[in-house]
Amino acid sequence: MTPHGVVETPVFMPVGTQATVKAMTPAELEALGVSMILSNAYHLHVRPGEDLIARAGGLHRFMGWRRPILTDSGGFQVFSLATMRTIREDGVEFNSHVDGRRLFLGPREAMAIQKDLGSDIAMVFDECAPYPCNHEYACQAMERTLTWSAVCSQQARAAGQQVFGIVQGGTYGDLRRQCAERLAVMGFDGYAIGGVSVGEPENLMLESASAGLEPLPVDAPRYLMGVGHMRQIVEAVALGVDMFDCVIPTRVARNGSAVTRTGRYPLKAARYKEDAEPIESGCACYACRNFSRAYVRHLLNTDEILGIRLLTIHNLYCYMDFMRDIQTALEAGAFTQFRKTIRETVVKE
Amino acid sequence: MTPHGVVETPVFMPVGTQATVKAMTPAELEALGVSMILSNAYHLHVRPGEDLIARAGGLHRFMGWRRPILTDSGGFQVFSLATMRTIREDGVEFNSHVDGRRLFLGPREAMAIQKDLGSDIAMVFDECAPYPCNHEYACQAMERTLTWSAVCSQQARAAGQQVFGIVQGGTYGDLRRQCAERLAVMGFDGYAIGGVSVGEPENLMLESASAGLEPLPVDAPRYLMGVGHMRQIVEAVALGVDMFDCVIPTRVARNGSAVTRTGRYPLKAARYKEDAEPIESGCACYACRNFSRAYVRHLLNTDEILGIRLLTIHNLYCYMDFMRDIQTALEAGAFTQFRKTIRETVVKE
Repeated sequence: MTPHGVVETPVFMPVGTQATVKAMTPAELEALGVSMILSNAYHLHVRPGEDLIARAGGLHRFMGWRRPILTDSGGFQVFSLATMRTIREDGVEFNSHVDGRRLFLGPREAMAIQKDLGSDIAMVFDECAPYPCNHEYACQAMERTLTWSAVCSQQARAAGQQVFGIVQGGTYGDLRRQCAERLAVMGFDGYAIGGVSVGEPENLMLESASAGLEPLPVDAPRYLMGVGHMRQIVEAVALGVDMFDCVIPTRVARNGSAVTRTGRYPLKAARYKEDAEPIESGCACYACRNFSRAYVRHLLNTDEILGIRLLTIHNLYCYMDFMRDIQTALEAGAFTQFRKTIRETVVKE
Repeated sequence: MTPHGVVETPVFMPVGTQATVKAMTPAELEALGVSMILSNAYHLHVRPGEDLIARAGGLHRFMGWRRPILTDSGGFQVFSLATMRTIREDGVEFNSHVDGRRLFLGPREAMAIQKDLGSDIAMVFDECAPYPCNHEYACQAMERTLTWSAVCSQQARAAGQQVFGIVQGGTYGDLRRQCAERLAVMGFDGYAIGGVSVGEPENLMLESASAGLEPLPVDAPRYLMGVGHMRQIVEAVALGVDMFDCVIPTRVARNGSAVTRTGRYPLKAARYKEDAEPIESGCACYACRNFSRAYVRHLLNTDEILGIRLLTIHNLYCYMDFMRDIQTALEAGAFTQFRKTIRETVVKE
């Protein structure tokens, strides 16, 4: 339950980094059954600024999205996009990835930004360790995340806004477990596993996520950040994860490929030149009901926006449909069988 | 009346050069009340090829558009886009603007392409003289157009396909009149004024168009190609023109500007930074009903596709709404007053 409605879980949140899920209108997202999206404190702080969005009535009103929004704190972006980082006790000084201007973000700033945005769920400001990373550095990053999390939990919030803690600790199960235990003591509205999908092998990702999930309170929502592939989502659901976000469906579309349960298809390929089939046979999305692979290929080859739009619609539909199937399997007590089928049939990318 | 339905006139046809009206789905075009679009034999010949489209069931099916399509013959593109032209009696040899490969288009080829595409209205293959252009060259281009028109009228057509003649003659009223008279003798399903909006002053364009329209049969549709500004459309309707096409609404959108009856607005401008008004106050389009100028500006400044989409929707709506007002004024016998108002209020771009 959030100020903008109830979210059925497990839920997949399309990514709307710059206050727009790339190439999509809010009406199209609603029609796809999207119940919650993710946006980003760092990007919106850089452009157009959270003060402007606050004066416009908050992020929901600014972007015309009526359903819940979760905002990431900017921690991940500061550690992945920004340059010339100086980590201090109270946050990080860095250069903007857009214009190089010097900026500072810490737990106070990140929470103030998210308060201005008025998101339904705000994330704590964390330090996201890279992969690979030795135990000592991963431990330092975890300690800093815990210190910052405590500060975050004390900041003012928007009306009804929930705050989620983020479990760090790299690929080290002992650190993940410790971090989760200490966050649980602080008490958050929900908990995320962060710093995953940063290049580590899938089994390490799932193992360390599992270690971090185990000590968390059973009644609080659990969110695996930035994951991911459909096969990984099913494994994470088996570990008790409720929430997911990933750029795959939208980014893969802009790269000209279709996402399906049987793999990705680069639709620019010559073999689709005269292919009268829809993007994915049997799919009920708008793109598949109305257009052929040959047409989508033509649009991509002539750099037409509609090509990206049709692939984005299809790829998001594919993910939403997958989440519906997971929910159905869970409700029917058939998840174990569903997971087995996915393991056997869904292609490893 | 066409194989794909009745078209109420005067009609504005959005331009779908590459088998897509840029950034729009067919469903969105229908929702805007678009009753007919223009596509292009030259571009579709270059990519993906009319043979491929024919095997896919024709252009309507290929692009998922159920309503009428008019195709331009490629004459205009051969004389504006292509390089290394060699004009021969039977057509033009030129280099493709995409990959430089040597191509040939003449009246036979242009009609065969349009037959394969299966458009509702095909245009004859014409020579479009540039501006400025002396009387002698304009006369030569007109003679060539007449010769080619006669060839075009003898070619096989798609089922139910109409063929329109094109009046050339540059800015010379005597040539326009002569060309129209000789085309009328040949007998076409409709007639277009071509070779306009190529840089000549507006009064010269309207005067020579008027000279070309006068001798045409009163019961055949009249189409002013590539025009244009809303003010020019009203003047042309006063001259008896029924059909229009222009890239303005879609191209101006991609350049980040809104089209309105009171002028164009570059929405990237700093003055819209915190502007909570819709793109055009009082407009009922999807973009104006749901989003602010400040949001559209943010989308444009972050290179988000949705920015172009929202402006395209608005600009096309603006044109369609304008055409509805012209139709209403004509039906109510109030067109003279409407034209006066437009002359006084619609900004000269």
